[in-house]
Amino acid sequence: MKTAKLTATSETRTVGVGILGATGYSGIELVRLLAMHPHARLEIVGARQQAGSPVNEVWPALAASTTVFESESLPAGDWASRGVEVVFTALPHGVFASRARDFAQAGIRVVDLSADFRLRNAGEYARRYHLEHPAAEFLGESVYGLTEWVPTETLAGANLVANPGCYATAILLAALPAIAADIAGTGPIIVNALSGVSGAGRAAALGTHFVEVGNSASPYKVGEVHPHLGEILQALRLHRAVTTNGDPAVVFNPHLVPMARGIVANVAIPLATSLRAEDARAIYADRYARAPFVRLLEGDALPETRHVRGSNRCDLALRVVAEGKLLLVFAALDNLIKGAAGQAIQNWNVMQGWPQELGLPRDGWTVA
Amino acid sequence: MKTAKLTATSETRTVGVGILGATGYSGIELVRLLAMHPHARLEIVGARQQAGSPVNEVWPALAASTTVFESESLPAGDWASRGVEVVFTALPHGVFASRARDFAQAGIRVVDLSADFRLRNAGEYARRYHLEHPAAEFLGESVYGLTEWVPTETLAGANLVANPGCYATAILLAALPAIAADIAGTGPIIVNALSGVSGAGRAAALGTHFVEVGNSASPYKVGEVHPHLGEILQALRLHRAVTTNGDPAVVFNPHLVPMARGIVANVAIPLATSLRAEDARAIYADRYARAPFVRLLEGDALPETRHVRGSNRCDLALRVVAEGKLLLVFAALDNLIKGAAGQAIQNWNVMQGWPQELGLPRDGWTVA
Amino acid sequence: MKTAKLTATSETRTVGVGILGATGYSGIELVRLLAMHPHARLEIVGARQQAGSPVNEVWPALAASTTVFESESLPAGDWASRGVEVVFTALPHGVFASRARDFAQAGIRVVDLSADFRLRNAGEYARRYHLEHPAAEFLGESVYGLTEWVPTETLAGANLVANPGCYATAILLAALPAIAADIAGTGPIIVNALSGVSGAGRAAALGTHFVEVGNSASPYKVGEVHPHLGEILQALRLHRAVTTNGDPAVVFNPHLVPMARGIVANVAIPLATSLRAEDARAIYADRYARAPFVRLLEGDALPETRHVRGSNRCDLALRVVAEGKLLLVFAALDNLIKGAAGQAIQNWNVMQGWPQELGLPRDGWTVA
Amino acid sequence: MKTAKLTATSETRTVGVGILGATGYSGIELVRLLAMHPHARLEIVGARQQAGSPVNEVWPALAASTTVFESESLPAGDWASRGVEVVFTALPHGVFASRARDFAQAGIRVVDLSADFRLRNAGEYARRYHLEHPAAEFLGESVYGLTEWVPTETLAGANLVANPGCYATAILLAALPAIAADIAGTGPIIVNALSGVSGAGRAAALGTHFVEVGNSASPYKVGEVHPHLGEILQALRLHRAVTTNGDPAVVFNPHLVPMARGIVANVAIPLATSLRAEDARAIYADRYARAPFVRLLEGDALPETRHVRGSNRCDLALRVVAEGKLLLVFAALDNLIKGAAGQAIQNWNVMQGWPQELGLPRDGWTVA
Repeated sequence: MKTAKLTATSETRTVGVGILGATGYSGIELVRLLAMHPHARLEIVGARQQAGSPVNEVWPALAASTTVFESESLPAGDWASRGVEVVFTALPHGVFASRARDFAQAGIRVVDLSADFRLRNAGEYARRYHLEHPAAEFLGESVYGLTEWVPTETLAGANLVANPGCYATAILLAALPAIAADIAGTGPIIVNALSGVSGAGRAAALGTHFVEVGNSASPYKVGEVHPHLGEILQALRLHRAVTTNGDPAVVFNPHLVPMARGIVANVAIPLATSLRAEDARAIYADRYARAPFVRLLEGDALPETRHVRGSNRCDLALRVVAEGKLLLVFAALDNLIKGAAGQAIQNWNVMQGWPQELGLPRDGWTVA
Repeated sequence: MKTAKLTATSETRTVGVGILGATGYSGIELVRLLAMHPHARLEIVGARQQAGSPVNEVWPALAASTTVFESESLPAGDWASRGVEVVFTALPHGVFASRARDFAQAGIRVVDLSADFRLRNAGEYARRYHLEHPAAEFLGESVYGLTEWVPTETLAGANLVANPGCYATAILLAALPAIAADIAGTGPIIVNALSGVSGAGRAAALGTHFVEVGNSASPYKVGEVHPHLGEILQALRLHRAVTTNGDPAVVFNPHLVPMARGIVANVAIPLATSLRAEDARAIYADRYARAPFVRLLEGDALPETRHVRGSNRCDLALRVVAEGKLLLVFAALDNLIKGAAGQAIQNWNVMQGWPQELGLPRDGWTVA
Repeated sequence: MKTAKLTATSETRTVGVGILGATGYSGIELVRLLAMHPHARLEIVGARQQAGSPVNEVWPALAASTTVFESESLPAGDWASRGVEVVFTALPHGVFASRARDFAQAGIRVVDLSADFRLRNAGEYARRYHLEHPAAEFLGESVYGLTEWVPTETLAGANLVANPGCYATAILLAALPAIAADIAGTGPIIVNALSGVSGAGRAAALGTHFVEVGNSASPYKVGEVHPHLGEILQALRLHRAVTTNGDPAVVFNPHLVPMARGIVANVAIPLATSLRAEDARAIYADRYARAPFVRLLEGDALPETRHVRGSNRCDLALRVVAEGKLLLVFAALDNLIKGAAGQAIQNWNVMQGWPQELGLPRDGWTVA
Repeated sequence: MKTAKLTATSETRTVGVGILGATGYSGIELVRLLAMHPHARLEIVGARQQAGSPVNEVWPALAASTTVFESESLPAGDWASRGVEVVFTALPHGVFASRARDFAQAGIRVVDLSADFRLRNAGEYARRYHLEHPAAEFLGESVYGLTEWVPTETLAGANLVANPGCYATAILLAALPAIAADIAGTGPIIVNALSGVSGAGRAAALGTHFVEVGNSASPYKVGEVHPHLGEILQALRLHRAVTTNGDPAVVFNPHLVPMARGIVANVAIPLATSLRAEDARAIYADRYARAPFVRLLEGDALPETRHVRGSNRCDLALRVVAEGKLLLVFAALDNLIKGAAGQAIQNWNVMQGWPQELGLPRDGWTVA
């Protein structure tokens, strides 16, 4: 029995919701979170391998679920006829895109958690993901759903929302206020990030074996090769008011660390002119003043993944160093919530015209 | 914003609630869970060391909290005058008991998470906890709140509920159906259990240092010395319809394992006569048919702590071995929820006449 | 550069050694330990998938290694002609057995870490491992290499040694002194054990994914189904001086816990007559007085896996409970060393007539 | 029984060795490693709290040890009269320094693992460690023992060696070849590093509680406040052939991650002019060509802490990014070995005129 202390919305109807790709870590998080959403009515949960199995057998933690996984190949028309108005897709890159047209024609709105509709440019997609794009005609229609940076009306009118990558969400929430305020100078932006193992997905692989990743820390895909750099650079360019210095260069060093979930990142931004800490803070405080899921920490506090586990928040903290010439922005979020399923629901809330925080946890888990 | 899909109760008023000892792992779990309870109105959260600090600074995960820790020494009368009708206490053993009379006189009902009021006998308490009992006169009045095994009317009329220990909850939920059905034979009941490190409390100690307990497994207080044996034996004696074999002997081997939360236990019960697996199952299925927080697993499934993390459930599974002469019962629960804060709220729900599951999660966290 | 403070043996020649199945966790531990052995000359290291790759690329931790993995299918004759006198095999069950005859004919002694030659009875093997035995004619010739329980001369004359299973080693070292002293009574012996994840092998599988096994504890194959029960029961029968009560019944509940290596087990043995703790201790102290790798702990100390990590030791502790009618024996060992590669080398040392402790660590790692 | 396959040195005498502060993680690692050193004769092991206790009781992993902890306050003269020629000190900052004169007068050479003698300047020491230096007159005499960067004859003649900090070792081994080759340009050097929890010491504290640091990742002391920046900047200045740009600015963001041991760091160095990857590689390969404990990785390989656990190695890898204008150097080492006890012994080897690798592991642990 889930409970609510806060009044939800005046709207009392529920909306039929479907999920495609529900057995991975992001997909099952969608199942878990949507079960708590006051206006979601989970109609179809499609899974590639578990069709026919009850959710609460495949994921025994979800004991209260009465849903049974269905086949992923169910035609879009069937989804529509069963009352699905929106589908959340959490399939591997390149899989859903080939069915995007069908769902569009069936009048079903889509929030896609894969990378397929994040980039505007099919060539860039091919270069980053080593795949020819299966539905390039939709690239111009999709909305990049970094909720805090999309105009409400844009999301409200969107039929296809590309949910940002987990790393990209943390890095962009950290970098964009400085970029948009045009305080960045020349020189590369250097990003370091640490991710929990759920970020590597649920497929069995030596690289996620407990003995291989436990008790160790490993950089991987460092420098300029991580695919999220595509959407990061695209968003930085979009929000830079005046580009005097050409394109920003971003160097990104991700690390795998032995924890289940969470990302903590820091972004080092060279400043055009010396800045005082309080001025940097003012820019960020102002930008996120009405963002319920961004918390700007004060004093010595720094974002830690344990403080955002289970929450849809992104915590931020700022430091100005190098005699005022370098801004450090630290960010932490839960890669499966604000970095995936939670932000997808946040986007959907705005698409529906509801408060963005509806059904989403701002508190995290104290111990996990 | 927390949300509810199920209608709560017809009652719409809230009840003023207080917490004593809120900075430990069980105490802060009370804060987290009560924030989601539809009828709880958190009035006073008392902490020994953090009085004056906002909850969301001491526990940054609870970002949405607007509560400030208050002094634990606030007199009971003040609690009453501020509308507190029930207080949950999560103080070290022996600390709250000396104030129990004050709270009783102020008309405040108590759910005590310490061991102080679990045992009927002050001598047994002194023997198990090496403390003289500070309020032995209440031992006869308190109700041992193993919710599934207390008559609803007893809890409804209780003013002082002793919340069972985490190990004791798992072990008794596993053992009592067999004991009450009087199918146990002679010979000791052998219990083995594995606990996460939050069970050892939050005080800084070498024994909970990451480097000392991480990546290792350790038995401790094995045999007949763990203090929870007191309440376990007391409950076994109470529920044994006919005692033909004298007191049950229980041997208990707890282990500390490197996880944050969770207990998994198995209880090996010698049987008086050979039993078929389906007969054992029938006893348990019948006993827990109306228990929303006990799940009896089927087939090959076994309880795992990851399946109960974040939930108020206790999962059980049965095996009959040794040619029908030994019953193995496996149990898993979240030590901070069903083993502490969750069961305390479950008890309070019954004390108030509400459905026992009100505001409590049956689903757990899929990834943690 | 490895160093020695203790005189090794007067023998100065080295012995050509080979390994079959070197990329799994036990196999690579053989590589690591044999590199430190004063008389081992590693000639051939065969691996199924990594043939042609340098050891120090596949396992970067072994930076000092100059060995290159070779094909596992190299004929036994080639091994002999390259000077291999003994081969350690760490292949999956059923794989090496079909080649056992070839190696025997080539005059190469074998220490086999798989289960293939542990059981005397091919039917029992088929029942426990669901495989028809590929070389049943060797079952009568192999020596079950639980080093502390095999007469030196038996090992010295052996050409095929079956290295015990990791669980079986811990459980038998704990149980055999009581069994051999014939102090056990009727009723099942109940064993509980906790193992680190390396015990599940290195193959990529959902069951060893960091997110699935991390931060959780899980019983598995409980009761009477774990395959190691075959060798455990066989050894118990062998060492029971007088069997008045028929075969011993053993119930075995293994658990997977989130640590890389290590096993801690406890064995609860019903006693025929009441025993004092000091008498139990005397039996064990006497039995292991000359066993350099068994340490009997004193006082309140209990075996913990962190105390045996990296060591070839098995630590033991005793408790007598239930009014003298139940003996609890606790054991801890490193599953990859005393439970696999270390005991294999210990056996080989005896086969060669060297001190059993040659080249093997008695100290463990203090922090890991 | 430890063994050696490689000839040690022609010298056969042993040298009397003492340890001050042996119960912390670095101190006990000295005990463990020195027990394997062919020329070390451990005479006195002093501990603050465990005097009188056997090492193998306080650290049960070291079962083979026959040493008993002695009082730390034993006068230096007693150490000398018992044949101690060198003492390794692993006490908290500021504690040993006040006794440095006594040991010098007693003719005992010192390798100090604390920060006390790393900085040349007492004011800088006071600023970084918030302590007045107790023995500033020795600051000019001590040798900063980053072994690979000290002339052999300097170490050979040293009586007081300041062992570098764990972070500083990783960062300087990564940065110095570029700095010494004078290829760095203007702009801050940005360092990010991840450390295991043993780096935080063994004192019981909430900040090292398993539940607080497990399953989470946390930046701390970020920007320009970590005390190791003192020795890092001092070394960078020392090795920079021509300083055209004034002092280097270093920004350092350390993170605590849930693993027992290990550091992985990356250093981003702006380049004065565009550099090709192979030219960067040549500089590093040349510089470390004769360094047995530095391994420069090839191809896509990156340093991971699991590859250096248990070893005295530091693994390095290079990337040139941002159109040749930024050099990324990745480093991994075991903070307790190359970052503490191992490097101390490496320094001592050189002080004695022995090969630097004597008694030190180049291989690490494959599974831990």
